[in-house]
Amino acid sequence: MTYARRIDLRSDTVTQPDETMRVAMSSAQVGDDVLDHDPTMRRLEEETAARLGMDAALWVPSGTMGNVIAMVIHLRRGDRFLAPRAAHVLEAELGSSAWLAGGMPQPLEWTVGPGRINPEDVRAYATQSSPYYALTTRLLCLENTHNFAGGTVTPPDEHARLVSAAREAGLLVHLDGARLWNASVALGVPPAALTVGVDTVQVCLSKGLGAPVGSVVAGSRSFVKEARRVRKMLGGGVRQGGVLAAAGLLALERIDDLAADHANAALLAEGLAGLGWEVGRPETNIVIAAVPDVASTLTALERVGVLATAVPGGVRFVTHRDAPELDVAEALRRISAAQSPAPAA
Amino acid sequence: MTYARRIDLRSDTVTQPDETMRVAMSSAQVGDDVLDHDPTMRRLEEETAARLGMDAALWVPSGTMGNVIAMVIHLRRGDRFLAPRAAHVLEAELGSSAWLAGGMPQPLEWTVGPGRINPEDVRAYATQSSPYYALTTRLLCLENTHNFAGGTVTPPDEHARLVSAAREAGLLVHLDGARLWNASVALGVPPAALTVGVDTVQVCLSKGLGAPVGSVVAGSRSFVKEARRVRKMLGGGVRQGGVLAAAGLLALERIDDLAADHANAALLAEGLAGLGWEVGRPETNIVIAAVPDVASTLTALERVGVLATAVPGGVRFVTHRDAPELDVAEALRRISAAQSPAPAA
Amino acid sequence: MTYARRIDLRSDTVTQPDETMRVAMSSAQVGDDVLDHDPTMRRLEEETAARLGMDAALWVPSGTMGNVIAMVIHLRRGDRFLAPRAAHVLEAELGSSAWLAGGMPQPLEWTVGPGRINPEDVRAYATQSSPYYALTTRLLCLENTHNFAGGTVTPPDEHARLVSAAREAGLLVHLDGARLWNASVALGVPPAALTVGVDTVQVCLSKGLGAPVGSVVAGSRSFVKEARRVRKMLGGGVRQGGVLAAAGLLALERIDDLAADHANAALLAEGLAGLGWEVGRPETNIVIAAVPDVASTLTALERVGVLATAVPGGVRFVTHRDAPELDVAEALRRISAAQSPAPAA
Amino acid sequence: MTYARRIDLRSDTVTQPDETMRVAMSSAQVGDDVLDHDPTMRRLEEETAARLGMDAALWVPSGTMGNVIAMVIHLRRGDRFLAPRAAHVLEAELGSSAWLAGGMPQPLEWTVGPGRINPEDVRAYATQSSPYYALTTRLLCLENTHNFAGGTVTPPDEHARLVSAAREAGLLVHLDGARLWNASVALGVPPAALTVGVDTVQVCLSKGLGAPVGSVVAGSRSFVKEARRVRKMLGGGVRQGGVLAAAGLLALERIDDLAADHANAALLAEGLAGLGWEVGRPETNIVIAAVPDVASTLTALERVGVLATAVPGGVRFVTHRDAPELDVAEALRRISAAQSPAPAA
Repeated sequence: MTYARRIDLRSDTVTQPDETMRVAMSSAQVGDDVLDHDPTMRRLEEETAARLGMDAALWVPSGTMGNVIAMVIHLRRGDRFLAPRAAHVLEAELGSSAWLAGGMPQPLEWTVGPGRINPEDVRAYATQSSPYYALTTRLLCLENTHNFAGGTVTPPDEHARLVSAAREAGLLVHLDGARLWNASVALGVPPAALTVGVDTVQVCLSKGLGAPVGSVVAGSRSFVKEARRVRKMLGGGVRQGGVLAAAGLLALERIDDLAADHANAALLAEGLAGLGWEVGRPETNIVIAAVPDVASTLTALERVGVLATAVPGGVRFVTHRDAPELDVAEALRRISAAQSPAPAA
Repeated sequence: MTYARRIDLRSDTVTQPDETMRVAMSSAQVGDDVLDHDPTMRRLEEETAARLGMDAALWVPSGTMGNVIAMVIHLRRGDRFLAPRAAHVLEAELGSSAWLAGGMPQPLEWTVGPGRINPEDVRAYATQSSPYYALTTRLLCLENTHNFAGGTVTPPDEHARLVSAAREAGLLVHLDGARLWNASVALGVPPAALTVGVDTVQVCLSKGLGAPVGSVVAGSRSFVKEARRVRKMLGGGVRQGGVLAAAGLLALERIDDLAADHANAALLAEGLAGLGWEVGRPETNIVIAAVPDVASTLTALERVGVLATAVPGGVRFVTHRDAPELDVAEALRRISAAQSPAPAA
Repeated sequence: MTYARRIDLRSDTVTQPDETMRVAMSSAQVGDDVLDHDPTMRRLEEETAARLGMDAALWVPSGTMGNVIAMVIHLRRGDRFLAPRAAHVLEAELGSSAWLAGGMPQPLEWTVGPGRINPEDVRAYATQSSPYYALTTRLLCLENTHNFAGGTVTPPDEHARLVSAAREAGLLVHLDGARLWNASVALGVPPAALTVGVDTVQVCLSKGLGAPVGSVVAGSRSFVKEARRVRKMLGGGVRQGGVLAAAGLLALERIDDLAADHANAALLAEGLAGLGWEVGRPETNIVIAAVPDVASTLTALERVGVLATAVPGGVRFVTHRDAPELDVAEALRRISAAQSPAPAA
Repeated sequence: MTYARRIDLRSDTVTQPDETMRVAMSSAQVGDDVLDHDPTMRRLEEETAARLGMDAALWVPSGTMGNVIAMVIHLRRGDRFLAPRAAHVLEAELGSSAWLAGGMPQPLEWTVGPGRINPEDVRAYATQSSPYYALTTRLLCLENTHNFAGGTVTPPDEHARLVSAAREAGLLVHLDGARLWNASVALGVPPAALTVGVDTVQVCLSKGLGAPVGSVVAGSRSFVKEARRVRKMLGGGVRQGGVLAAAGLLALERIDDLAADHANAALLAEGLAGLGWEVGRPETNIVIAAVPDVASTLTALERVGVLATAVPGGVRFVTHRDAPELDVAEALRRISAAQSPAPAA
């Protein structure tokens, strides 16, 4: 059985701008953001900062650039930073934290739950010292939701305890909030409830919300001033970025829509479990299934037009606005059919 | 006398997408350029490579990122690179060549004409050696047109001699072609005639041509493969970049329009000369006037709604598609009026 | 009870040049090692390379510089390197692998024994891949003996299996052999038996052997040529280094003396165990005792003139030529006395 | 005519420790400078700081490391630093200022005399600004004496005017004083008269004074604390450095001996001029002769056992304590003989 249409569950980054967003982009008011400040960019930055409860914000072309700018500014060369095991900054940014920020990563184990760390470990690494163990730990890098743990959520009180432990130990705190909107929707709290006490936070506009390009990094006014300089050095300063910012502003209006993605993820997980897959209950829009042979599973899925990605020890499905409930149901049907005994020829 | 409308001659980067371009953007076919390859991005990269006579190409958010990726790949840490005095890579990229590529710049004097260097100097620095003068010179970085020299053009035969000198001395060659299209139009030769023998070239789509965001860096297939990795590390990988690439593709169709910008620059220069300004004959779309006091000249110009920028020892005007002949004439009228003896009150 | 004389068991780096070594230093033939090649330096480099079974070698001021030069040469910016948990390159070099080499560290667990890793983990990390988990793993960094694991030894067959796994996965291999001499003596095999298949190895001359300053990094001739350039950039090129190399040459003659240090470590460990300390059987010259409160234990030791250092979860004692058997016995007596119930006043 | 004995005038770095210095080294009191602080090191650092009029100082293995540590601490990534044309930090440190400190060099012309710059140029580059010329200039790097200009001296009043200009423009000042002792002796002023107002200064102990290895970088206490951290990261921390520091302490006692080197340089320059060479009057111990063909001149000199080095456009001779007046006279005799018409065979 072959299927003409692919159901793409590789990532919520595949979401495309819809008609409304395209109209917004094509009618955006723009300016030269390097020379002056593109007016739509400025609105997007102010609006995002407000939603995040931060003083100021800066548009960047990608989440990776937002994270790396924060680390470049926060870390002295050779400083250690802590992050939950398998954090995006550790695994999926090609080592830019080491090359660009000179930072030494220290993964923290998931002792509280998948993707979730505890304040004791933060304290332990922050204060470790000896003439030999002489690294200075300077930064805690959180990730909410935690992507490779399966879109897991850190609730506000747990976040607050981690930030307190970091602060007491003299650490700065950066939050990789590439999917902070998902955490906010899943918990039913405003995004600003999940940024309490952090120095900087990065959020993506191109994941799940349909904006084609862009992220925002937020912090104090002086941080954002320096971030603008570093962005230019990295080659991330753009001219008439308003066309992208217009999409970003619309994306911000659509955050509540993410609830549908979460419902679809639950549907998918239940369906897979019913088909005998080893899969937990998703907290947001990411479903990770443990499989014995990742490569052959991906191939089998691709044969029925269902696209997923590999994570260590498993297969990751991500639900999003461009793969609605009907698509998820169809994906389950195809997987079920492929698992059935093939009719004799 | 005050003027409601500003005539913005600060840079051709201020050009905005027109209606046609906005429609192209809003109807662009897009994909996830990080996961797969956005189809419109791919078309833009192939089309640009073909026009430049290069094997392959990669979209980047800015000219700075295109230049820095080339330098990161070409230079070992601490290697020296040669560039004409006041090159954009030396003065206007905030030191990213040093920080990111670890490159030691060596400016070459303009011995042939403004912005133009000679093969003897390339040879002299490339082969310099002693136990002390131990820097390895590895790269010649050309710039055509040369921005801060006043948009000056290096013709194909002169380009070829510089490339030959570099090659014979074992150097790599990168061409900062942010305004290569202008050189091509001014000389009446195809862009590929100006890239002969280079390893890599960077061209901008957002200068003069109206595309809102983006540049392209081109080279061999293996260079582009590595460039894609470095772009991701720098945070320059984007998702549905097709919306920007669609504008880029249209920009490529408009290169011949730059002739009008050049005519307007000639008009502006003649007009200023007629008003007693010290100004040479522009070769493309940049007019630099030597003035005794740069800051007060800029203020006086701004008072009559004419915007220009400072360069060392002078004031720079750049003509572009969003400041047509009528605007240039109007700018000259305002400057003339401001210079006239004011009528008695 | 106070003691006039301190027994310094903090590290074998405290060993001092004895009279014979001082005479060798003061009568060394020297030259300008930057301009030409200091003759005694050259002899030391050739002699060390021969003992290690490598093609060529280069003197460096410290083990840290030897390790970092290897990583700078082996790694592209952002590449991942593997190393046993708590390796010196991870914990005790202040992040220079990240800053200088742009390397992303990945600690491997001690699954075989303290400080010892297995080939499966090397393979697993080397071949991991996905569009997201996109780090390139390029280097395996071994450490023999493993310092913070307690001077533990990796025997030749285990070393060979690790190197094979790395090679098959396309990795380079660097060996931090700061205490390779100790491993060689403990195993009764020549040092070259422990470097089979590695690309580069670093050995120290100032640990346990009494030379005041210096390490050597060895590899292929082309590696050493490039290492000389990187050493100069880091500021590690020296002039009349022969005075230090003369000490190094004598140190090489004294490797067998390390057996006495190992015997003393065994004596110390037995003694401490007899006093109720939780301490394993040392494999070389390092004794690590697990204690509930590291800081107060160190203070108590210092009060009786016995100096040790903190490692995570414990206290580290290192035996060496300047603390002979009598000193170790005296240290045990003092510790015992301090633990005894104090007589009533 | 061949000569058994070479007269080595390539550099004053070739000077070797004499008997007295070797005895001092072999009887030096030493400690572990990484763990504690080697007592002789400490004395050398305190003594050097006092002579330089600085608060604190740190031993480093080479002048390059001293300079690069200062630049790493003073510069943000991408900042511009000013230095006289052909400064050692620009030409002879293999680009470590770019790689390690991320600094963009700006050479200043010798408008006052060879190797000497003027305060106007410092001001001009420090305050240059425009949206494009956006580099931040942060550091003035002086060099006294200026090596490649021919050991030229900057007197105290000129030094003070340069420092004032830098200060007023908000710049930091580092002094590369590799041969500051020569400037001090030539001017008859204490070294501290030549460091007035600088933030940091580096001086060498292995040039002209006979110490085999080592330089010292001095500054405020907080600078030195941070410098110690950076030195360890670069691999410049050593153990029983006292053996080298003992030589350094003796070197400090011999500064006045440099007057003999200066007299010998004058003798050499006069002699060469008398033989028709184009050579200026040396200010210290460096004689640069302009020659039409540098390579063949060096070969001809080597044929008569006189060693010199190439500098751009000329040949450099350096006088030093291991080439006394008799050697200089002998060198002149040999050169003269080689220039005479050869007798018929």
